[in-house]
Amino acid sequence: MNSKKLAAEKAVEFIEDGMTVGLGTGSTAYWAIQKIGERIKEGLSIQAAASSVGSEDLAKQLGIPLIPLANLDLIDITIDGADEVDNNLNLIKGGGGALLREKIIASNSKKFIVIIDESKQVDQLGRFRLSVEIVPFASNLTINKLRELECDPQVRSLNNKPYITDNGNLIIDCDFGKIPNPEALNGQINLIPGVVENGLFIQMASLVVVGFNDGAVKAYPGQSART
Amino acid sequence: MNSKKLAAEKAVEFIEDGMTVGLGTGSTAYWAIQKIGERIKEGLSIQAAASSVGSEDLAKQLGIPLIPLANLDLIDITIDGADEVDNNLNLIKGGGGALLREKIIASNSKKFIVIIDESKQVDQLGRFRLSVEIVPFASNLTINKLRELECDPQVRSLNNKPYITDNGNLIIDCDFGKIPNPEALNGQINLIPGVVENGLFIQMASLVVVGFNDGAVKAYPGQSART
Repeated sequence: MNSKKLAAEKAVEFIEDGMTVGLGTGSTAYWAIQKIGERIKEGLSIQAAASSVGSEDLAKQLGIPLIPLANLDLIDITIDGADEVDNNLNLIKGGGGALLREKIIASNSKKFIVIIDESKQVDQLGRFRLSVEIVPFASNLTINKLRELECDPQVRSLNNKPYITDNGNLIIDCDFGKIPNPEALNGQINLIPGVVENGLFIQMASLVVVGFNDGAVKAYPGQSART
Repeated sequence: MNSKKLAAEKAVEFIEDGMTVGLGTGSTAYWAIQKIGERIKEGLSIQAAASSVGSEDLAKQLGIPLIPLANLDLIDITIDGADEVDNNLNLIKGGGGALLREKIIASNSKKFIVIIDESKQVDQLGRFRLSVEIVPFASNLTINKLRELECDPQVRSLNNKPYITDNGNLIIDCDFGKIPNPEALNGQINLIPGVVENGLFIQMASLVVVGFNDGAVKAYPGQSART
């Protein structure tokens, strides 16, 4: 049983005719986009906004109509995966390097549905490194400031060169160990001049849908549910 | 009597042999850079880091040695102007469009000396629009979020096109009216996904040097003085 696919397909049930839909990025969001493509073929009428070039390409292949970003206003529903989800439904995202666009899309969505398999559930965030997007100018100074927050920062690289985001920035993967207060850390990181955004998504999820290996699916409503 | 020049030359007295010096940007910082050039000719030995291409060019003309950004660590002293300074020595900067680099340089300086003429003193910040640097991706969504903070946001333009910063971003000039709590607003703005930085400099000034039209110069030490 594919637990990612289960969660994704459950989430897609919330999409209705006429909606603007935000498309996530990654191996779980992939299944949501596939399912949306199927529903389009069955007659569903929506417009979509993609959080990455990869998801945009997939949407085009599946015949999902994309709305030009310049015309984008409030998004009705966004469905996206996460690297970690804690008991308060706070998230870490960014493993795929698209955290900034994902966070912009999610924060402008009436309903933000997070889809994960059961392995992504954690008691406390911080199992993996937290991704922080920073501007290239004087990047070593910004990295020093991240280190002052008591983490081990590493510049993400690809083919032995620094990885460059869709926005022309660097990704710093920061090992904080366990993160007891993600909301405070989110604020501290974003106050550092040179930081563009970080992978903590605090009280943003409207609903977290978890797929289990035994075929079960559970949905947990978040505090931020606006609809 | 040139009050900007008076303040600038007073500030340059704090520079000592062997220091790394951050160079600001704008009409008051211009006089500081000129004076540093004079002191270099008299034998002062320093290395400088510039907060803009304009200041870098001026430094080169004056024979001020520039340190490569990749080698930059903590800066000993930075001297820069401001658009507004309130009674708590909080600042608004960014009129010149270089706020991000200026804020990175200032926040990594042991001593940050702000130089102004008396006209820049205000009881409360907000006399002019606050500049906010945002990424171009889905910029209308980020502008909507700024508007939710109850300001009137305008995209800065140059020659009928959006103004693009040294970092490839847009500047949104936001009219908040009077800003009663600049520290809170600084945090609120920087938490918006899509915002890179804003022009509020909170508790960053070590010293504010004010030049008066009658030839007087006064210096006010800030709370953040680290040396």
